[in-house]
Amino acid sequence: MKLLECVPNISEGRDLDTIERIVAAIRESPGVTLLDVASDADHNRTVITYLGEPQAVLEATLALCTRAFAEIDMQRHHGGHPRMGAVDVIPFIPLGELTSEEAVSYAHALGEAIGAMGIPVYFYEDAATRPERRNLADIRRGEYEGLAEKLATPGWQPDAGPAGFNARSGATVVGARFPLIAFNVNLATPDVAVAKRIADAVRNIRGGYRNVKAMGLALEDRGEVQVSMNLVDYRATPIQRVVETIRFEAARHGVLITGCELIGLAPLAAFEEPLKHYLQLHDFTIDQIVETHLL
Amino acid sequence: MKLLECVPNISEGRDLDTIERIVAAIRESPGVTLLDVASDADHNRTVITYLGEPQAVLEATLALCTRAFAEIDMQRHHGGHPRMGAVDVIPFIPLGELTSEEAVSYAHALGEAIGAMGIPVYFYEDAATRPERRNLADIRRGEYEGLAEKLATPGWQPDAGPAGFNARSGATVVGARFPLIAFNVNLATPDVAVAKRIADAVRNIRGGYRNVKAMGLALEDRGEVQVSMNLVDYRATPIQRVVETIRFEAARHGVLITGCELIGLAPLAAFEEPLKHYLQLHDFTIDQIVETHLL
Repeated sequence: MKLLECVPNISEGRDLDTIERIVAAIRESPGVTLLDVASDADHNRTVITYLGEPQAVLEATLALCTRAFAEIDMQRHHGGHPRMGAVDVIPFIPLGELTSEEAVSYAHALGEAIGAMGIPVYFYEDAATRPERRNLADIRRGEYEGLAEKLATPGWQPDAGPAGFNARSGATVVGARFPLIAFNVNLATPDVAVAKRIADAVRNIRGGYRNVKAMGLALEDRGEVQVSMNLVDYRATPIQRVVETIRFEAARHGVLITGCELIGLAPLAAFEEPLKHYLQLHDFTIDQIVETHLL
Repeated sequence: MKLLECVPNISEGRDLDTIERIVAAIRESPGVTLLDVASDADHNRTVITYLGEPQAVLEATLALCTRAFAEIDMQRHHGGHPRMGAVDVIPFIPLGELTSEEAVSYAHALGEAIGAMGIPVYFYEDAATRPERRNLADIRRGEYEGLAEKLATPGWQPDAGPAGFNARSGATVVGARFPLIAFNVNLATPDVAVAKRIADAVRNIRGGYRNVKAMGLALEDRGEVQVSMNLVDYRATPIQRVVETIRFEAARHGVLITGCELIGLAPLAAFEEPLKHYLQLHDFTIDQIVETHLL
């Protein structure tokens, strides 16, 4: 099965009627399943999560954008979260047998369609057209208020749509990224230094695994500490390898793992390697799970 | 999601056109996914596997039975596998959130409908109406050739349908059972006595785990031995507990596990406990797997 997940962030987090009119574009789309709608009044921003057959998700996302551009006027938008447009950022995430390359194609198709609505579009992460546009924060620097100037700056012409400032809708950042796994490992010690040392041992930037972002923090209420991680490519750096490395590093301090936490959702494929490893199921594939044949 | 799997065994394994006309009842049923059709000419028998929304599976199964009773005449059937009817046995297997009790209800509803077609029906396993009918082999003893006599024997009146012998269609055995997991553990020794001892340690009948059937056998080509198992209730006796017990018992002989094999398919829920155990994910549920939201 080829599946596409999409997590648009729109610049409206207070008026629930307006949000529902926009989100209805997803509810009304056949073949698309709405997973979550999370609005934050302080941020004045709503994050919408849905998935389905890729073409259906593409069309549903375009319908959502059309409604959001009609409903939201950035000239009146204030909120605590960085943003540069009415539909601020749209990441596509490949699931099942959909490849990253295919997710990028859908991101580019969506960006061109949004551009054709008269809105400047930047492509980021795997969909980026140049290295300095991979990072969302770099694209969004200056935010909506600095966008007119940014669009006029050499090197910052949009990847799709007009280079002129659209005061009502701002700009939209569209991209594709591999699904990330938010995974925490809790340790039986109150000493946060242990968590910080172990986080350094596994995080890429300090010499650890390539696809691990990690930090150590205290869980004061429990008298424990935590290594809190984003695993950004479970194919190359699978969950169990990181957990077992943390177990090994913790043993050096005489500390055991009390438990782990998967935050939010993760794709089924992320569990194939842990099952193969621990159960020594060398030939196992997720196709051996009955329910995959219904997807 | 509530899902029902069904695995009818029909008494035709040679005439592929006939088989396809019968199986077409499943292919033509909306909401039902055909997983497998396995015909055996020596057995003169075909095993059909499909699943879907329970009511759709019930209706599809009834459609399949109607076609099979029209196509197959037991008076001309010969084959190497024990059988007593044109549609010989129909097990229903609950998946997802469907309970065993619900699967039994569907089995009883199907049996009553088949009975109304003039065919004697016995209920077996979880759908059995009395202890001596739980075991399929006990019901089928005497086979088609002994069925007229069996139906006339006190204590063997059918659970549904007429008690009279139906020469054309024989009788059908309908039941419900929890999904079983066929799981093998391979050991790094050529000594089959080790596999037999370990099989005895884990199999219920010799004092082992309640829901484990096991035997030890040699894998001559590989110079290894195997503990070959059916795990008949992964809820009460989860996969990882059996594997780790075998690991512990094998260590007593200085033997390591070389690998394990999952034979065929298993439901997603069977992997929840192994993932929770090995990754210490105490609060994990399969709802955290993205794709479950599409089922």
